[in-house]
Amino acid sequence: MPPEKNIAARQEKQPSAMSRRNFLKAGAAAAMSAGLAGTLGAKPLAAAQTTSGAGYVKSKLHSRIDYGGATVRYVEHNDQWLGTSQILGAVKQYHEADQGFYMANRGKYTQEAQDCFYHYHFVMKHPFNNAIATFAMSLMPDQMVSGTPAAEKIPIPDPEQMTQHIKDCAYFLRADEVGVGRMPEYGYYSHKAPSQDDLLRDDLSNSVPVTERLPYVVVVMVDQHLETMLASTGYDGISAAQSMRSYHTTGVISVILADYIRKLGYNARAHHFTNYAAVMPPLTIAAGLGELSRTGDCTVHPRLGFRHKVAAVTTDMPLVPDKPIDFGLLDFCRVCAKCAENCPSEAITFDRDMVEYNGYLRWNSDFRKCTEFRVTNSEGSSCGRCMKVCPWNSKEDSWFHTAGTWIGSKGEASASLLKNIDDIFGYGDEQIEKYHWWLDWPERYGPPQH
Amino acid sequence: MPPEKNIAARQEKQPSAMSRRNFLKAGAAAAMSAGLAGTLGAKPLAAAQTTSGAGYVKSKLHSRIDYGGATVRYVEHNDQWLGTSQILGAVKQYHEADQGFYMANRGKYTQEAQDCFYHYHFVMKHPFNNAIATFAMSLMPDQMVSGTPAAEKIPIPDPEQMTQHIKDCAYFLRADEVGVGRMPEYGYYSHKAPSQDDLLRDDLSNSVPVTERLPYVVVVMVDQHLETMLASTGYDGISAAQSMRSYHTTGVISVILADYIRKLGYNARAHHFTNYAAVMPPLTIAAGLGELSRTGDCTVHPRLGFRHKVAAVTTDMPLVPDKPIDFGLLDFCRVCAKCAENCPSEAITFDRDMVEYNGYLRWNSDFRKCTEFRVTNSEGSSCGRCMKVCPWNSKEDSWFHTAGTWIGSKGEASASLLKNIDDIFGYGDEQIEKYHWWLDWPERYGPPQH
Repeated sequence: MPPEKNIAARQEKQPSAMSRRNFLKAGAAAAMSAGLAGTLGAKPLAAAQTTSGAGYVKSKLHSRIDYGGATVRYVEHNDQWLGTSQILGAVKQYHEADQGFYMANRGKYTQEAQDCFYHYHFVMKHPFNNAIATFAMSLMPDQMVSGTPAAEKIPIPDPEQMTQHIKDCAYFLRADEVGVGRMPEYGYYSHKAPSQDDLLRDDLSNSVPVTERLPYVVVVMVDQHLETMLASTGYDGISAAQSMRSYHTTGVISVILADYIRKLGYNARAHHFTNYAAVMPPLTIAAGLGELSRTGDCTVHPRLGFRHKVAAVTTDMPLVPDKPIDFGLLDFCRVCAKCAENCPSEAITFDRDMVEYNGYLRWNSDFRKCTEFRVTNSEGSSCGRCMKVCPWNSKEDSWFHTAGTWIGSKGEASASLLKNIDDIFGYGDEQIEKYHWWLDWPERYGPPQH
Repeated sequence: MPPEKNIAARQEKQPSAMSRRNFLKAGAAAAMSAGLAGTLGAKPLAAAQTTSGAGYVKSKLHSRIDYGGATVRYVEHNDQWLGTSQILGAVKQYHEADQGFYMANRGKYTQEAQDCFYHYHFVMKHPFNNAIATFAMSLMPDQMVSGTPAAEKIPIPDPEQMTQHIKDCAYFLRADEVGVGRMPEYGYYSHKAPSQDDLLRDDLSNSVPVTERLPYVVVVMVDQHLETMLASTGYDGISAAQSMRSYHTTGVISVILADYIRKLGYNARAHHFTNYAAVMPPLTIAAGLGELSRTGDCTVHPRLGFRHKVAAVTTDMPLVPDKPIDFGLLDFCRVCAKCAENCPSEAITFDRDMVEYNGYLRWNSDFRKCTEFRVTNSEGSSCGRCMKVCPWNSKEDSWFHTAGTWIGSKGEASASLLKNIDDIFGYGDEQIEKYHWWLDWPERYGPPQH
């Protein structure tokens, strides 16, 4: 019997058994009967394509991914595309210090931006945002994100069941969405940024090269909170707290998951807000959780839009990657441009088409303008106005919004229909006062006081 | 105009405004017009009684507490009762080292119990539980739970609005329930336990006295996860992970909230799983989140039953305490005893009535038996069988369970009806395999290997 059929037959007989005893016993029997011991782990995709009609491995706790109303197609993995993002040539890895906030820190932007970043003023000036970010910094030490795996590896005869299990762990730990991707090499930073002192002198000579190359990535996503978004302008005092809410929770989940995987004998590194060795958007796309958008490098999720942050775990545990998704976002972004109309820093382009950038196609938005506005914003703490106005972030659990996003994934003409409906309903401009639960400190939002 | 009416009138005019500007401006005006500057904070209860029909201050994000089907009455604060728990005399503070796990650690129980506790074997023997607990230990250092408040105090002319705000912060940080109580002095430990070395020698001479006395406590609660409970026996491999899920999340929330309150200029200390200066059940009762149960000192919540853990923040920020609740649990526990019938360690009493213990009335259950079973359980990791079988933990969002708990809060006769219905439906014995997402390591559940 070919191994795929064997696996499928076993799964029919034991549709829900997942104790480790059964898991290993059945898996080992299947592997031995097919002469596959030690090799199944190397061919995870074959298993995924034969046993799953959906483009993702189902979790027991969340057996269906909630895409809202969007129609989602799955995209095969290949070297010319990452999901719906076209790869034109060699994609160069980034140096972490070339990321926007570090550029501000290095004095590559305005003096005011450097000053605000150095004092971490743009988040910390609001005491609630400060408290969440302060906690998130406790996740920063290298021993929180990485370590040596246990000497003994748990055998994994069936990577699909292990993938299901890892997703269930993440959902149990309160992730809102979980996906698994093949880790793209260009997802890693080339180097980690050096110390704060070196950065201030713009001296990158002590940067540490990122040498890790692990084949899979688990991406966990947490919603930035619907009601708060509905009450906020997107760039007022609570804006950074919305990011911090998702950063700290995904950070904790990634730290626990990576530690667990190492305890099972495999390499695993967590990547989160205060300690990355990889850049999140390509990982998010690889894990089937979003597509690139008009903003340039930020991804949109079919139900949450930009209203999320992710953390990730890279690993060599044999897993079955989910497929990247296509819900028509590129056609949509081409005609919508609501984020560009509303961007307070005018960072987001109105260009109709994507352009080549670093070996791939993306919209030509300006992350310098975006970063400068976020770190110096004197009307609030950071900015997420694009998150607020994007028609894809679900405003409510209504048939209307579900229908709207269903329409939105049907091509260019319907994209402009969704955008018009969104505008007519005033979405993006609403500031629903009954949800305005936070306190504002306008006198602290200006430049840092020395 | 008496100050209460002034506050009420202002709130009618501004039912939902909660920016800090309005909050302070309106509050300051009210305080000045009534000549109350600096004194309102000292009389929070008066405000609560005049402005709220419910027994709790409403949150903007969760305007109604979800009690499931239970009928809840509110209990006035007084010195003879803590909620429905009768105080008969002086309640002596506990030494932390007299808590069950520390007793095992000190060798006061069996050698096996000491051995298992010393190696932290009872949680750590399961690698997933281990990973969550390892993270939770990063919350242990004193600088995570406490610190010096900011020099400048935010003025709080209206403690009720501040209470609402603090609750909203906790809900935003993903607490499932939040309550505020008056902090009972006997809720504090008399001493923190000394070092592990001292404990092993049973030497308490280096114990540090707990000197903090703060007037209020914010209690945050997180569900231990419905589906996992439905699939588990309550004392198998996943049992400790259910506790750890709620311990680590409530711990993080308490750390952030306490830090935020200190940044607003008030004293605040977080109390959580890896660093307590207080014992949680009286705080939970004081905050209106549960009543004492047949298990002795564990509290039951009207919707979650025992399926929760809490963390707390003690503070001198002027807040308005919620009232303790009475949903008929004492009458219910008197006749139900389903936890006693199902307790694998036979720790829970079948006595009909409570007895005096340390100056208050409680059921005479045996925490030594309970602790010994949890730390030495060779069929799993720890134990939460009482959580699993208690009819109060909501099994499903059905009209049936809601009706059942409604019946359960109507007195002794109906208590036995709810228990019988619960039994007839097989609740407590179900092990729903489709939710069994975790892996089991039976070979590791035995005594620690040296």
